[in-house]
Amino acid sequence: MTDDTERHAQKMAKKKAARDKIMATKTEEKGLIIVHTGKGKGKSSAAFGMIFRCIAHGMPSAVVQFIKGGMSTGERDLILARFSDVCQFHTMGEGFTWETQDKTRDTEMAQAAWKIAKDLIRDPANRMVLLDEINIALRYDYLDIAEVLAFLAAEKPPMTHVVLTGRNAHPDLIEAADLVTEMELVKHPFRSGIKAQIGVEY
Amino acid sequence: MTDDTERHAQKMAKKKAARDKIMATKTEEKGLIIVHTGKGKGKSSAAFGMIFRCIAHGMPSAVVQFIKGGMSTGERDLILARFSDVCQFHTMGEGFTWETQDKTRDTEMAQAAWKIAKDLIRDPANRMVLLDEINIALRYDYLDIAEVLAFLAAEKPPMTHVVLTGRNAHPDLIEAADLVTEMELVKHPFRSGIKAQIGVEY
Repeated sequence: MTDDTERHAQKMAKKKAARDKIMATKTEEKGLIIVHTGKGKGKSSAAFGMIFRCIAHGMPSAVVQFIKGGMSTGERDLILARFSDVCQFHTMGEGFTWETQDKTRDTEMAQAAWKIAKDLIRDPANRMVLLDEINIALRYDYLDIAEVLAFLAAEKPPMTHVVLTGRNAHPDLIEAADLVTEMELVKHPFRSGIKAQIGVEY
Repeated sequence: MTDDTERHAQKMAKKKAARDKIMATKTEEKGLIIVHTGKGKGKSSAAFGMIFRCIAHGMPSAVVQFIKGGMSTGERDLILARFSDVCQFHTMGEGFTWETQDKTRDTEMAQAAWKIAKDLIRDPANRMVLLDEINIALRYDYLDIAEVLAFLAAEKPPMTHVVLTGRNAHPDLIEAADLVTEMELVKHPFRSGIKAQIGVEY
């Protein structure tokens, strides 16, 4: 080996040893509360990536869309058409809240979605339940954060993963969650006049 | 309407007007260079979410995995089994670089993957090409960043989206990209002894 190659091998060996040591301490499995928040893209996409992962493994899962306009219709159509046997899909709401401008109606929609979500989470057959854009409903007080957290603490089966997405995750939700990722916007093509495009945004 | 409801409606109407005004200026479509980086989770999952979105719309796409261990086998198996008609899938490499500890071999693997990636990007039939974990190959100089950027500038068809994922995206790549999201780790269950779990990590 050349010196450079050898140095590389030594560096990688050290990394591997460190990683192996860490991984050996990770032995527990449990259902996680997972939050995707932040102003960047990918919150719903990454959550859908996990749903497709569950589908790939034949693990029953479910999706509740709290805000209709909040996500691609592409994924929904694909799941409904091809994977309705392993993934239940419920779309609530009538689009982004600034489209409807009716708090009473939006609150009713959010409450109806939450009722369905609770039933899906209670059913231990579901290994993952995605509550897409629920953070929007929590932010506008269409749903009560304390009630949502109390339900998750008391009634979520121990092995069920619940994924909550949307900007401005409530601090109490972040506190209660096991895994939180903030999608940060570094650069966005809307700034240079590019519109939302098929395959990327929807 | 109550005062509270009216205030909400006014606030939302303002938001809608502002949003409509912004959206009206977004008229251009083009193939984007999209980067998912950062230490958080969801970089590959969100990219796969976009691939599934393309699949849902019947848009031909392709995936090149630069690091075998870098991503779920779940998505790969699902795409190969169900969607190989619209999504080409190539896995290169022999696992994480700290598993192999052989720079010469890793470099050969990365170069071979890049050769395939170039052919897939050149083919204008592909509307999206995902280069999963290519940032790792760029970071360890298995691939030359200048060569990759020169190729994208000169040969990427104007309407093709190219998605590049992995930690530590090179500053020159961020500069060249249209859409950059940094997945930031806020909280991770590994810290409390939870191991990687099916459906979540793979």
